[in-house]
Amino acid sequence: MSLVVIGSVAYDAIETPHGKVERTLGGSCTYIALSASYFTKTSIVAVVGQDFAEEDRALLAGKGVDLEGLEQVPGKTFFWSGIYSSDMNDRTTLRTDLNVFAEFSPKLPASYAKEPYLFLGNIQPVLQSRVQRQMNGVRFAGGDTMNLWISQNRDELLATVRNWDFLLINDSEARMLAGEHNLRKAAEKILDLGPNTLVIKRGEYGAMMIRRDSLFMVPGYLLVDLFDPTGAGDCFAGGFVGYLAERGFDLRSGLFDIRELHRAVIYGSVMGSFCCEQFGVQRFRTLTREQIDQRFEEFRRFTAF
Amino acid sequence: MSLVVIGSVAYDAIETPHGKVERTLGGSCTYIALSASYFTKTSIVAVVGQDFAEEDRALLAGKGVDLEGLEQVPGKTFFWSGIYSSDMNDRTTLRTDLNVFAEFSPKLPASYAKEPYLFLGNIQPVLQSRVQRQMNGVRFAGGDTMNLWISQNRDELLATVRNWDFLLINDSEARMLAGEHNLRKAAEKILDLGPNTLVIKRGEYGAMMIRRDSLFMVPGYLLVDLFDPTGAGDCFAGGFVGYLAERGFDLRSGLFDIRELHRAVIYGSVMGSFCCEQFGVQRFRTLTREQIDQRFEEFRRFTAF
Repeated sequence: MSLVVIGSVAYDAIETPHGKVERTLGGSCTYIALSASYFTKTSIVAVVGQDFAEEDRALLAGKGVDLEGLEQVPGKTFFWSGIYSSDMNDRTTLRTDLNVFAEFSPKLPASYAKEPYLFLGNIQPVLQSRVQRQMNGVRFAGGDTMNLWISQNRDELLATVRNWDFLLINDSEARMLAGEHNLRKAAEKILDLGPNTLVIKRGEYGAMMIRRDSLFMVPGYLLVDLFDPTGAGDCFAGGFVGYLAERGFDLRSGLFDIRELHRAVIYGSVMGSFCCEQFGVQRFRTLTREQIDQRFEEFRRFTAF
Repeated sequence: MSLVVIGSVAYDAIETPHGKVERTLGGSCTYIALSASYFTKTSIVAVVGQDFAEEDRALLAGKGVDLEGLEQVPGKTFFWSGIYSSDMNDRTTLRTDLNVFAEFSPKLPASYAKEPYLFLGNIQPVLQSRVQRQMNGVRFAGGDTMNLWISQNRDELLATVRNWDFLLINDSEARMLAGEHNLRKAAEKILDLGPNTLVIKRGEYGAMMIRRDSLFMVPGYLLVDLFDPTGAGDCFAGGFVGYLAERGFDLRSGLFDIRELHRAVIYGSVMGSFCCEQFGVQRFRTLTREQIDQRFEEFRRFTAF
């Protein structure tokens, strides 16, 4: 079933120990949609400038992504540049030019309003809420956030998250949001904020999912070649929610096989791992669903005992 | 079947965000033996000074640990003190008094020489080799090391490790030993050094086991209360090798169920997690095998998909 994704579409300049790229398609919405497109029909809501290239539009369209909600306005597309540390565990932002993204006011096409699944990528919480209010057939909704909103727009974020079924963040954000270092305790506090499902991403160390009725953990995939971690967390999100949408999963009914949620975390991990194998979105030019399912089975083999 | 463990027996002063203890039983041999004793008959080779307390001897003896190889000599027992960072991911050594450990020359009692399993805790590689040469009925042997020996006694360490069936180290040591940051590549290089089985501990992030024929990964146990991580890696080692000894596992024959090795990694993780729940060795005063097996099953539940 169909998924609506909202977030940023950007151009990135990235430097890692393996090389450098001056301008490549990026942004949370891009990565989430590319990843989710392997599982389900995906529609995006985002904004780009007049410099947005036809070939980048074609990459998304080629994956079947519905671009009706991709608004093109005068000005330049959001630009970000960053450099990774030698072990790629840290990165430094060199430049952030919000450009047309600064005035982003998401407009939901009428044809999207009854879609059953919604993923709100990391943007201003007030904008996330505004989109969600326009969607009246949503079966479940959730999203991501970041340290900036947690510290500077806390009340708005809490009001937004209260209406989410799931929240998907990294471990430092979870600790910051809960004001608690111990992840298990932090997770309990976050489950009091509204979402019934919390997914915590831990980069190369894997991920976990915490609900009142279950705890699930997955180690990170041990990559032979880690070229560029940019977008890996967003690809995780796309795999997670994309798989649930593909399965027609109903998180609100409570009537489901919990293992489907676990498998969604595995598909998230699989998609995050593929993303790192090449620069930017390159891996998605050749990636096939068969390769995805093979890696899913690999996860099964290397975690079974 | 019986396991021989060699390493340090010490007194530790530990400070964590949860409290402080001035003098408590510690040392790699102590933790490994306490942990392994839940699975198999365990005999130790270590040295202590005249200050070694009767109650500490009684704790080990009470777990059935054979103390014939625990030599008591004039002088003081090895003393270590350290303080953990607020998130307990880093620790600073405040004091290391080697005392009687400085002149430690392991003496293997005749009754140990034909035991089938040997774990060489982290001591000078030359001493590890000397003990191994005295054991003539060993079915499999392996051990631990540390950054000091990797950098300063590299040749001796390589000569020692060449005769091991397995090596059990943490991720930073693996990277240092291989001279390679990527863990998968580092592991391949280490498997060229002799051991057919490499176990890499990653603290709160879990552990992995790498062989030419298999890869196994386990996430860390999400503790509600993490009081003191001291000894957790050694307890992991004790659970890993203790379980294999209990099962009469023959790593050299190649004729075994690989899942038994995976289960050994899980038992290692279980023992490491229990160790952190109280200061020093305190948790082992009350821990039961039933609790261990329950947590093993918990690992199964939270990793199945």
